[in-house]
Amino acid sequence: MDTVKDAVNSLFGRKPTGPKVRYGVVGAGWITQAAFIPGVGQTSNSVVTILVSDDPEKRDKLGKEYNLKSYSYDQFSQALAEGHCDAFYIATPNNQHKKFAVPALEQGYHVLLEKPMEVTIEDCEAILAAQKKSGAKLMIAYRLHHEPGTVEIIDRVHKGDFGDARIFSSVFTQDLKPDNHRAKHGYDAGPVPDLGTYPINAARNIFGLEPIEVTAIGFKTPGREFLKMEHDTINVTLRFPGDRMAQFVVGYACAFSEGYKVVGTKGAFEVNPGYNFGSGIKISYKTTINGKEDSKTFPETDHFGGETEYFSECILNNVDPEADGHEGLNDVRVIVAIKESLDGKGKTVKIKSEQRSKRPVLEQAKTLSLAKEPKVLIGRDSQKPGATSSSGSETDVLSSNARQSNTWTTARTECNERMTNFNI
Amino acid sequence: MDTVKDAVNSLFGRKPTGPKVRYGVVGAGWITQAAFIPGVGQTSNSVVTILVSDDPEKRDKLGKEYNLKSYSYDQFSQALAEGHCDAFYIATPNNQHKKFAVPALEQGYHVLLEKPMEVTIEDCEAILAAQKKSGAKLMIAYRLHHEPGTVEIIDRVHKGDFGDARIFSSVFTQDLKPDNHRAKHGYDAGPVPDLGTYPINAARNIFGLEPIEVTAIGFKTPGREFLKMEHDTINVTLRFPGDRMAQFVVGYACAFSEGYKVVGTKGAFEVNPGYNFGSGIKISYKTTINGKEDSKTFPETDHFGGETEYFSECILNNVDPEADGHEGLNDVRVIVAIKESLDGKGKTVKIKSEQRSKRPVLEQAKTLSLAKEPKVLIGRDSQKPGATSSSGSETDVLSSNARQSNTWTTARTECNERMTNFNI
Repeated sequence: MDTVKDAVNSLFGRKPTGPKVRYGVVGAGWITQAAFIPGVGQTSNSVVTILVSDDPEKRDKLGKEYNLKSYSYDQFSQALAEGHCDAFYIATPNNQHKKFAVPALEQGYHVLLEKPMEVTIEDCEAILAAQKKSGAKLMIAYRLHHEPGTVEIIDRVHKGDFGDARIFSSVFTQDLKPDNHRAKHGYDAGPVPDLGTYPINAARNIFGLEPIEVTAIGFKTPGREFLKMEHDTINVTLRFPGDRMAQFVVGYACAFSEGYKVVGTKGAFEVNPGYNFGSGIKISYKTTINGKEDSKTFPETDHFGGETEYFSECILNNVDPEADGHEGLNDVRVIVAIKESLDGKGKTVKIKSEQRSKRPVLEQAKTLSLAKEPKVLIGRDSQKPGATSSSGSETDVLSSNARQSNTWTTARTECNERMTNFNI
Repeated sequence: MDTVKDAVNSLFGRKPTGPKVRYGVVGAGWITQAAFIPGVGQTSNSVVTILVSDDPEKRDKLGKEYNLKSYSYDQFSQALAEGHCDAFYIATPNNQHKKFAVPALEQGYHVLLEKPMEVTIEDCEAILAAQKKSGAKLMIAYRLHHEPGTVEIIDRVHKGDFGDARIFSSVFTQDLKPDNHRAKHGYDAGPVPDLGTYPINAARNIFGLEPIEVTAIGFKTPGREFLKMEHDTINVTLRFPGDRMAQFVVGYACAFSEGYKVVGTKGAFEVNPGYNFGSGIKISYKTTINGKEDSKTFPETDHFGGETEYFSECILNNVDPEADGHEGLNDVRVIVAIKESLDGKGKTVKIKSEQRSKRPVLEQAKTLSLAKEPKVLIGRDSQKPGATSSSGSETDVLSSNARQSNTWTTARTECNERMTNFNI
């Protein structure tokens, strides 16, 4: 690279060399294989060009399937040096985000980082610092910020359709499979960071405020000893300014269930499904305003394609994304405070977050049609983490994938992918 | 009364003199006028014969309308002595239950007592002691224990349709009107006893277990200073044996909203509407079992007629009702523990309740058709306590009632009903 290009990269991050932003993918678990790579295929402005994975089988097979240049994790600095992409999508386990995000950002690569941003506030701040230093774009992958139903209901709340929104309530659970990595790494890979990020983020953006206090009560389900965490089910109460309440239950030890409800002074609504994605999942809301009921169902869209299309627009047009690192950090502050509350056996913990000037808006919505899930998912941790889903059709797809994948599992001799992530 | 009759009454309570059990009604607020008296008209085995109210207008007008012998509160002992009924339905404010229930039970009158049973554990125990002494029947008016959809879903949980039920979650709110008595008497008339009794009772009977621990976080809505209570919105977390969780939010400071959700190891369900009653309210549940969705809506039934029909059967056949005083006491133990937790700013409080041997069963369901609400409701506190309802049609009915009632309000010169209750 010449010095002018270097200077530009260090001010605004790397300038894409072609009309499409080229993505490198770090971590090739279920979310990457089943959702991100197919989703990028739906965009008009993005393409996946390289793959960073520790599983030689994934590097080999996915590399051939999608025509990707592959690197092992140890070769990440080589990938950064060779420059075959403009941006990285990082979908490693939560505690492996900084490790890849910081060097990528420091070298001017734009980063689309899976949520939650990281495990500790310090690591989030390190990522933010790297981003500020290089001027590259950083977006936390809140796919729902680009889902039409989600941004519409947020917009309606902010317009006052339900009066003053006072109560947010949510249940989000899945029946975690014993072999999933989330079962093995305590709180940091557990239901609060993994599932709780959804209601935390939804409540913050619906109220348009940051929580000031949290109390969490933990539960441990008998007979689920494979869940290596102190609590597999947690009820969280958040106090927001003006004494608004958000409450959510997350858990790994029962059937799949999701959705949220908001009650305002003039009306209420329920979004269900509200968090999930994929075949057969149509985000829907039901409203009751002054006693009158109504409902709206949104078409299936490709959430991963949508967020990537948006992020690439930000990169190409030099616009800061809405869901920047501060958005990610504010969720992590809550996640960290919940841990402190649980450690204190339900003590109430204060949270100090900066108020956000940006919130998801209607214009961010993307309506790319849903990509087909690949028929074969490769390697360890490449299956959906939960045993059941909310939709019969999706379960069928899942079972079919699982059956086909077993063939691969039997066929291959080694699987040493250490870092795969399953952010829903 | 002769001595043989006295002896029988003191063993089993009063034996009805006719084919129908004759009820005296104590307290003539909204629930009595709009729901109980019309509901009794739907039964085959019950009739209202006397009215005890402190409002001369109510005594006069309701007495004439329904051909009732009327007494003031001060004349209650006279009513007990004169024996123009076999049983009492007591629907005074919560802290006025013992005052009427104990003397009635002591004199062998059967008592159908509105929930919650009383305000303190001691007062509940005094009522229980009076019941045991006389042998009269005592039932706490859990109308949903006789609602077909409610007992069916409880039955399905107990049969294992959803696997092991692990999580109960509920929101129950109403926009309390400033002139309602519930706004004026602190915790004891507030959302936890008034609305919280529903999710507490539902969770206990769905799990078939008694909670062992509670944590409650309180909120106070700005601009609702007329709500004379420390917290107008509360999130409650209950720990049940086997580390099952029940969670509910109740509040008086936002729109009407209700329903509950249960997640088990095999599936989940949502009941919505699940607590409400009246015109247009059809209890409905939606299930998801192994990813397959289904739903069922039950016909409108007269909940008040149903519970009364059942209680009269118990009286006539000398059978102990399912929702006896111990059922009421177990809910009150939770309500009292929630207060202690709120007073301790969210400290976790232990609960010690006796396990129940009885739970609501399918055979208790009654399907009486819904009575028409009277066109005119008389006197103070005779209107529905919440400003909005979940159903458009009901809101219309309500508005129409309110309009018509205003005529009465203007016409009458005095309204001194001190004790009226609005248990939903």
